[in-house]
Amino acid sequence: MKAEIIAVGTELLLGQIVNTNAAFLSQELAALGINVYHHVVVGDNAKRLEAVLEQAEKRSDLIILTGGLGPTKDDMTKQTVAAHLKKKLVIDQNALEKINVFHQASNRPMTENNRLQALVIEGSTVLANKTGLAAGMFLKKDTVNYLLLPGPPNELKPMFLNEAKPLLQKENPTESLMVSRVLRFYGIGESRLVTVLDDLIEEQTNPTLAPYAGDYEVTLRITANGDSQSCCKLLLDNLEEKIQLRVGEYFYGYGDTTRLAEVVVDLLKERTITITAAESLTGGGFQSMLASIPGASDIFNGGFVAYQNEIKEQLLGVSAKTLNEKGAVSKECAIEMAEGVQKLMKTKMALSFTGVAGPAMLENQPVGTVWIALAQENQPTIAICHHFARDRNGNREQAILAGFDFIRRVVLSLPIEIES
Amino acid sequence: MKAEIIAVGTELLLGQIVNTNAAFLSQELAALGINVYHHVVVGDNAKRLEAVLEQAEKRSDLIILTGGLGPTKDDMTKQTVAAHLKKKLVIDQNALEKINVFHQASNRPMTENNRLQALVIEGSTVLANKTGLAAGMFLKKDTVNYLLLPGPPNELKPMFLNEAKPLLQKENPTESLMVSRVLRFYGIGESRLVTVLDDLIEEQTNPTLAPYAGDYEVTLRITANGDSQSCCKLLLDNLEEKIQLRVGEYFYGYGDTTRLAEVVVDLLKERTITITAAESLTGGGFQSMLASIPGASDIFNGGFVAYQNEIKEQLLGVSAKTLNEKGAVSKECAIEMAEGVQKLMKTKMALSFTGVAGPAMLENQPVGTVWIALAQENQPTIAICHHFARDRNGNREQAILAGFDFIRRVVLSLPIEIES
Repeated sequence: MKAEIIAVGTELLLGQIVNTNAAFLSQELAALGINVYHHVVVGDNAKRLEAVLEQAEKRSDLIILTGGLGPTKDDMTKQTVAAHLKKKLVIDQNALEKINVFHQASNRPMTENNRLQALVIEGSTVLANKTGLAAGMFLKKDTVNYLLLPGPPNELKPMFLNEAKPLLQKENPTESLMVSRVLRFYGIGESRLVTVLDDLIEEQTNPTLAPYAGDYEVTLRITANGDSQSCCKLLLDNLEEKIQLRVGEYFYGYGDTTRLAEVVVDLLKERTITITAAESLTGGGFQSMLASIPGASDIFNGGFVAYQNEIKEQLLGVSAKTLNEKGAVSKECAIEMAEGVQKLMKTKMALSFTGVAGPAMLENQPVGTVWIALAQENQPTIAICHHFARDRNGNREQAILAGFDFIRRVVLSLPIEIES
Repeated sequence: MKAEIIAVGTELLLGQIVNTNAAFLSQELAALGINVYHHVVVGDNAKRLEAVLEQAEKRSDLIILTGGLGPTKDDMTKQTVAAHLKKKLVIDQNALEKINVFHQASNRPMTENNRLQALVIEGSTVLANKTGLAAGMFLKKDTVNYLLLPGPPNELKPMFLNEAKPLLQKENPTESLMVSRVLRFYGIGESRLVTVLDDLIEEQTNPTLAPYAGDYEVTLRITANGDSQSCCKLLLDNLEEKIQLRVGEYFYGYGDTTRLAEVVVDLLKERTITITAAESLTGGGFQSMLASIPGASDIFNGGFVAYQNEIKEQLLGVSAKTLNEKGAVSKECAIEMAEGVQKLMKTKMALSFTGVAGPAMLENQPVGTVWIALAQENQPTIAICHHFARDRNGNREQAILAGFDFIRRVVLSLPIEIES
């Protein structure tokens, strides 16, 4: 089944609201095995809506219209669809009853406009609105299915899930299941990932493979089609194994919303490794991200923001010699910061960040140069240098994530590039 | 001029991301006097994109395509547009140079794919990408204008504002000017702002008035229509004066992207007030936001993250008595933290944050309870208590912004609510 989502509303075309309904419905339809090939937005204009409908009928079996079911003059979705399909509008008694009760309960006068909300296209299945007054509709003409839903997301979502979804499942029975798995990677760019997995992407049929570049990381969604959960799982396991063999060291976790910091906090908690940090260019951002994870207090007591040199010296015990001879943006300074804060806070691990966020160069070092050192109990301290190519806050964000990745690699004994 | 926005990307049709670009561009085009009649989303499929293009050419004079300019096989926007218009793709030397420099600077191997990002449609005006690698394009064939922009919002927005907007203004000169001004407010909700300004909103014609609720703040866009800049400015000044009279204490700055932290850093710099912080629940987030502002180092040397009680005691000198008798989430603890860190860091001002971020209660205090204290040289320390109603990270974000607002109010001698 090919679906198309038509949102009706001039406020969308003015950019006053964002079409989140289309994203919600698309996710739901994908899970039902229904392919969405087009989203369209059109204003509150009957002529243009009708043109868009005619176009949609040529390419889609399911047309979902959102918005324009309210009581004002602007709202003309059901009127336009009815006229286009040469059908009448009739009063739905249940909807009318609901509107009457609402106005009595809230002691508001009911206007003729309000009665309009009880009008539905004749012959359609009426979808009850549990969170509002406008009724939804589902109808079929020739081979095309029409689904009309209200615009406000808090009305559209429950109506879709409770009323429309079962009807669509009946219209589009699928024997096969669709199961997705999201793999998350840090430290590898989208183009390099795609190059490394080129043949897998090229030959994909089932499971399919879709890379997506986020702000600082890449995700890979693999989706299998099969008769049962166990069959899909096997297909996904199989493909994932091939992927992990090639880029496993960059893989940090599963799921749509899992964050690198979360995975690292879990690793530290499992191994009861306490941690602290001394931050210069990141200004507390690493510790703030640590603290954003519930339960971080099991392994994190606190730490330092050492933004200026005098603080690095006075609080963390970085030597004046290092600062004078090597500068604050140096391997030596990073190491002394990490070792200093570890001694002060008596943790098993300590991280330090020092570098040039930008916009200007510092100590003759280019913007984006960042040293991160990791001190450990009874182990030599390791320092790595990064060269990021973003703006001030992009470089700071990158440094924070690189810090988490550094810990992940050390804890899991993965390879570490000293200079990247 | 009639415009249509075509977003290209299967991730949109799967509902993985929301088409915020369409809303942004629509707002901008409305301000330019360009009517947007259609938004369309189509997947990474050349045949369907070409069909959508043909359709658009029949009804629009300006076709804006977003997305699909990246380096992977999925990305086929410029290839499809070029083929459709029977034009070649040629290497743009500036774009190629930028891609080379990026890969050298970040020490990443450059793949053949990356070179693809430097290809542009022959005869088009190339739009520089300041925040990414994919070049944009503007071209005209017959009576239709085509504008190709990258999909990531952080690349699309600056490219549109700096590169594309001036070209569109030339293509679509309007006689009357439209001038907007954005006023930013912190500490007042949208519904309260709208209630206080009800009559102004009701009677609006010129200038118009549009409130917009962001995550933690409200903005008000006022837009005047007139023959000249000076006429528009007068109209805007007039309306702003009325607004400031009613809600001026919540107003913190102008512009689409100005942040509260930026305004506060400027205030502190103007008055050479140095600052530090001791953070518990915010875990370094306040200092990190401070450090995100270029030039913050003029007034900020560093500070402490005191996530656990022992650190509050050992490093900041909070008394065991206070921690035992009043708890860490108390006025007394906040005050001792702020005074402790001020003494250590010898700054003019010092802020402390202690509270319950969630998900669980702490010391029998409800989630969202936050004490913030502000210590000053030769002045009594002030402490305020907030009760936020968000999730863990929402409460932490709110606390950080409330800290900046606290400083703003103290520096400008504005009223302060001790408990809110």
